Amino acid sequence: MLNFKTFKETTGKNAVKVAKIAEKVYEETDVCIIVAPQFVDIFRVAQEVSIPVFAQHIDPITPGPHTGHVLPEAVKEAGAVGAIINHSEREITITTIHKAVERAREVGLLSLICCSTDPICAASVSLGPDMLALEPPELIGTPMSVSRARPQSIVRLVETIKNSHYQIIPVCGAGVRTREDVKIAFKLGAQGVMIGSAIKSKDFQQKLMEMAEAAAEVSYEG
Amino acid sequence: MLNFKTFKETTGKNAVKVAKIAEKVYEETDVCIIVAPQFVDIFRVAQEVSIPVFAQHIDPITPGPHTGHVLPEAVKEAGAVGAIINHSEREITITTIHKAVERAREVGLLSLICCSTDPICAASVSLGPDMLALEPPELIGTPMSVSRARPQSIVRLVETIKNSHYQIIPVCGAGVRTREDVKIAFKLGAQGVMIGSAIKSKDFQQKLMEMAEAAAEVSYEG
Amino acid sequence: MLNFKTFKETTGKNAVKVAKIAEKVYEETDVCIIVAPQFVDIFRVAQEVSIPVFAQHIDPITPGPHTGHVLPEAVKEAGAVGAIINHSEREITITTIHKAVERAREVGLLSLICCSTDPICAASVSLGPDMLALEPPELIGTPMSVSRARPQSIVRLVETIKNSHYQIIPVCGAGVRTREDVKIAFKLGAQGVMIGSAIKSKDFQQKLMEMAEAAAEVSYEG
Amino acid sequence: MLNFKTFKETTGKNAVKVAKIAEKVYEETDVCIIVAPQFVDIFRVAQEVSIPVFAQHIDPITPGPHTGHVLPEAVKEAGAVGAIINHSEREITITTIHKAVERAREVGLLSLICCSTDPICAASVSLGPDMLALEPPELIGTPMSVSRARPQSIVRLVETIKNSHYQIIPVCGAGVRTREDVKIAFKLGAQGVMIGSAIKSKDFQQKLMEMAEAAAEVSYEG
Repeated sequence: MLNFKTFKETTGKNAVKVAKIAEKVYEETDVCIIVAPQFVDIFRVAQEVSIPVFAQHIDPITPGPHTGHVLPEAVKEAGAVGAIINHSEREITITTIHKAVERAREVGLLSLICCSTDPICAASVSLGPDMLALEPPELIGTPMSVSRARPQSIVRLVETIKNSHYQIIPVCGAGVRTREDVKIAFKLGAQGVMIGSAIKSKDFQQKLMEMAEAAAEVSYEG
Repeated sequence: MLNFKTFKETTGKNAVKVAKIAEKVYEETDVCIIVAPQFVDIFRVAQEVSIPVFAQHIDPITPGPHTGHVLPEAVKEAGAVGAIINHSEREITITTIHKAVERAREVGLLSLICCSTDPICAASVSLGPDMLALEPPELIGTPMSVSRARPQSIVRLVETIKNSHYQIIPVCGAGVRTREDVKIAFKLGAQGVMIGSAIKSKDFQQKLMEMAEAAAEVSYEG
Repeated sequence: MLNFKTFKETTGKNAVKVAKIAEKVYEETDVCIIVAPQFVDIFRVAQEVSIPVFAQHIDPITPGPHTGHVLPEAVKEAGAVGAIINHSEREITITTIHKAVERAREVGLLSLICCSTDPICAASVSLGPDMLALEPPELIGTPMSVSRARPQSIVRLVETIKNSHYQIIPVCGAGVRTREDVKIAFKLGAQGVMIGSAIKSKDFQQKLMEMAEAAAEVSYEG
Repeated sequence: MLNFKTFKETTGKNAVKVAKIAEKVYEETDVCIIVAPQFVDIFRVAQEVSIPVFAQHIDPITPGPHTGHVLPEAVKEAGAVGAIINHSEREITITTIHKAVERAREVGLLSLICCSTDPICAASVSLGPDMLALEPPELIGTPMSVSRARPQSIVRLVETIKNSHYQIIPVCGAGVRTREDVKIAFKLGAQGVMIGSAIKSKDFQQKLMEMAEAAAEVSYEG
């Protein structure tokens, strides 16, 4: 999952460019890569690539008078297949998270809840999202990855999901930028990683290829 | 200004359809019509019509890690030429309003601040937007228009702007849906109206034509 | 737990008056009654009665420059022994809930998380509060109690807590105003009820006595 | 105006202690000193001193079901005579500011709006508060005072108020901690200063005495 945030390098034409890099890496490695561009870029990106597109946030509203909000139906029609919910840069109340997961399901969008701590991961399992991401905010944008700083948290996330009666894909993120980061995460049971600021690096295409290969390798081995 | 809000009738393909109706009415009457679709529909609508497109909200952020927020640069690149700020359905702090107006100017977007009361209109003049709209929230979506319920507020808005050293276009909205509503508003000095729920009516194209003609008439007379 | 909210009948001198009624009922029935007055009334109430006092909200801040926020240390020093967290009338993000529970523990305050739905109850168990209250907001202030409208939700709450490794007191609220409401709730396993708008009724002292007796009865039987 | 924020040095018993220092300085200099303790400390402080007490924030609500909010009536009954509104550490929407000013007036509380920039000061005049404070957030808590960093902003604030038809007391704050800071502010037309982090200094009583004397001097000269 590539979170485009609101970087200059991933806005507008650049969003399409990065999405095409992701598509190419997917084609060569067969590793699923999701892109999460800004709201205004969803339609444009979805028109240009065939890999899945997520929104960075949705509001749990139904059609009506909600100026300036993000309607799940509109996100879907623009070409997205899922949405990030409760990213640490866009946190919402627990009631809103729950409603957003439900609204996503209603309109046919996948949902990924982001969590900042282990107990919040454990809590969010009960809200029934399709994917659950541990992203310690203090590591976001740093060179220290969650894989190295919090391996035991990834294990705990995977265990908690296993012990629940929900089918949820465990994801981890924050600081992920190398082949090694991905390898560790997948070995510990994660089935996905979130990549943010690494997208801005000059040799991103090569980096992404390496990370995808690492994911493919572990999946093949494991 | 047509505020598409998050109505089903103005989402996705329907957003393009309504924007084309607005474009047609503009071509026949030469009255400027702005459309404000949802974030995800801005690019699509801007590709299809030549009339101005506004965002329904912007966040006063600069490029960076702001997942789920609305970057003014991205809104601009998607094809919008302006943004609504502080709509009563998406209110923000006064500091955020001020920063949003400044950020809009920086990236070359027009700004329209929405205000719920007369004193807030008077206050917002000092924040220097390009357009200022009085929209009493208690009248939004009702059959009672601001033109009929608050004519004196429109007069006050126009006066306050005149007495300031700012060049601001006075706009009014809430409940506007007939030729008469537009006529009154323009006679009182408004130079624009905001139209919301009226867009959902079946004969909207005819209604919009009538309202545009009313605006043209008064402008010609006045 | 009597939630004083911001009713006129429970502000200032009236807060002390209601707290004294609660104290008297406690003395006669030996049923623990907690009062949750407004922030400004905590000190005053805590000075006048010996029953436990809760704050209606705390912010998970530490001492510092946080004008207008509610410091847990200050709440404690004013005489409170606990705090309501995430009441449906004052919802916060899941990260904030978690931090508030931790800050409460650090300063020696008990924490009660309020939840609006069953999955949110299940989720909140993992955040480790001392008490967990199910309060469906759609029943708050109505004559229909949670005991009658959602008995299965109370059972689920009790079960979820039992199956966890946490020691949490299950509480339920919304619409609770009769002896029967309390009896049902306690029979289903709740160990506390939250009472809000019922406080405003004229014969509240008698009502509270009846509810306390019902609680005592079930506890004795069970 | 002493803003107690949520400092350890101004919580609970310490709040009373600092308020008594302020009272003493007032008695010796006849310069009006207002204290703004935390919500939970308002009653306690108001009981112990005769100088005016302000709340650090109010919510523009009326009595009713608003758990965890700050009811103006309750603040009044606890002994406060006014309230800070929109402090940069507790910002609210422009509509909420306006309603809070109106609610304060209704219940007989004075209102002081805090503003972060010159245009926001100019804007807030139209909302009709009793006092208006310029507090550039970037200077709060620093050794650089508004008096030195932004003298022209103080002049502008004073002018704007003079040119309006409102009776508003101009106040300035941020970084104010010396006799000189106060002297400059008063010479430029301010009729009050806000003092925050300076309260934490060890020799605060002497500092406050000096600042009060400076204020008295300028007022006498001017």
